[in-house]
Amino acid sequence: MDGPPSERARVQRLPDRARYDRATLEAILDEAFVCHLATVVDGAPIVIPMMFVRIDDRLYVHGSTGSRMLRALETGATACVEVTLLDGLVLARSAFHHSMNYRSVIAYGTFEVAQGEEKTRAMEALIERIESGRWDRVRQPSRRELAATTILSLPLTEASAKVRTGMPVEEPSDLELPVWAGVVPLAFERGVPVADLARSAARALSR
Amino acid sequence: MDGPPSERARVQRLPDRARYDRATLEAILDEAFVCHLATVVDGAPIVIPMMFVRIDDRLYVHGSTGSRMLRALETGATACVEVTLLDGLVLARSAFHHSMNYRSVIAYGTFEVAQGEEKTRAMEALIERIESGRWDRVRQPSRRELAATTILSLPLTEASAKVRTGMPVEEPSDLELPVWAGVVPLAFERGVPVADLARSAARALSR
Repeated sequence: MDGPPSERARVQRLPDRARYDRATLEAILDEAFVCHLATVVDGAPIVIPMMFVRIDDRLYVHGSTGSRMLRALETGATACVEVTLLDGLVLARSAFHHSMNYRSVIAYGTFEVAQGEEKTRAMEALIERIESGRWDRVRQPSRRELAATTILSLPLTEASAKVRTGMPVEEPSDLELPVWAGVVPLAFERGVPVADLARSAARALSR
Repeated sequence: MDGPPSERARVQRLPDRARYDRATLEAILDEAFVCHLATVVDGAPIVIPMMFVRIDDRLYVHGSTGSRMLRALETGATACVEVTLLDGLVLARSAFHHSMNYRSVIAYGTFEVAQGEEKTRAMEALIERIESGRWDRVRQPSRRELAATTILSLPLTEASAKVRTGMPVEEPSDLELPVWAGVVPLAFERGVPVADLARSAARALSR
C-alpha cells in the first residue's frame, strides 16, 4: 500500500477514499480532458479550466503567452491542480447521506516552462489525446505559432487521488424506509462527429 | 449588452467569448453538478471539487464542519469558484487551432455561513438538484446531522461566463488541406439507475 507522497498531498477528509498508487492516479489523469488549475495572483486565488495531458510523471498544460496566469506560473507561483471525473449520483434514504461517486486527483507544486523538444512532444501529446494518430495528419505548428504558445509542466511528485464508488452509506435504521435508494450513473460520452463542411464548400465555390 | 460586474470578473483572454448576461451564467450553473472551489490556505492555493447549487443570486456549497478548507472560507478567506461544462473537442486542420467547446463560469468573492431557514433551504435545493421532488420523500436531517454540516454561500456579484461554440478557427491557407476537421460533441449522460437492493435484501433475510 502506497502512502501519501507529502503532508500536503495527504487526503485529510474521508481518508478511506484516498488512493496513493500510481496506476489509479494515472488512469484518472488519462481519462479527463480538463484540469482546474489554481494559483495566487496579487494575493487572491484564481482557478481556471485548462486542457492538459500527462506524459510519464508530468502534467502539461498549454496556453497563450499573453495569459496573466501562465506568466505568474512561469515565474514560480505555487499551483494546485485538480481533476475530477464524476461517475454517479448517490441517492440515499436520508438527505444527509446523499453523495456522488467520483474519481479525483489533486496535485501541488510549481510549474516549469517546457522548451525545445519537450515543448513539441507536449503539443503532440495534447493533439494525440484528442484523436490518436492526428499529430501526423495535421499541419504542424509554424515558428510563429510555437512562439505564441506557452507549455508548462508540473512534476507529479505531490499528487494524490480520492475515489468514491458504490452504493449509499445508510444509517441501519433508515434501511427499511420506503424510499428508492441507489446510484444514477453519469458518463461523459463522445457523440457523432460533425464535419466542418460548410467552410470547405464555401471555399470551393469561391474559386 | 451587459458588461463585466467588476474588473477582476472581466474575461481577459479571448474577450469575444465573454458572457456577462444573467441568463447565460445561471444556465451554466444550473446544468453543472460540481464546482471547483479555490482559496488560499497557509499562503498556498488549494482547489477542490464540490457539489453545489444555485438559489437566486447565490451559490451554495456544503461540506463537513471538519473540513479545513471550509473553516478557512467561514472566516473570510477570499475564494474563486469555477464551473465548466465541456461540450466538444474542436479538431482543426492545423495543430495550433485545436480547441474545445465549453461553457464556464468564474466567480470571485467571500463565502458566508448559511444558518437556520437559509441552511435548510440550501440542503433541500442540493437534494432537489439530484432528483426533483426527492426532499419530501427522504428522511430529513436530524439535529446531529444538521450540526455536522456546514453550508456556505457565495453571492454571485462578481461572476462572468466564457463560452466557445462552433467549428474550428482556421488559417485560410489551411482550408484545403486534406485533413478531417470539425467537432466531436461531448455530453454528460445519466445512465440507467442501479437500485441499492442488496442491502435491503440482506436486511430482510436477517430478520
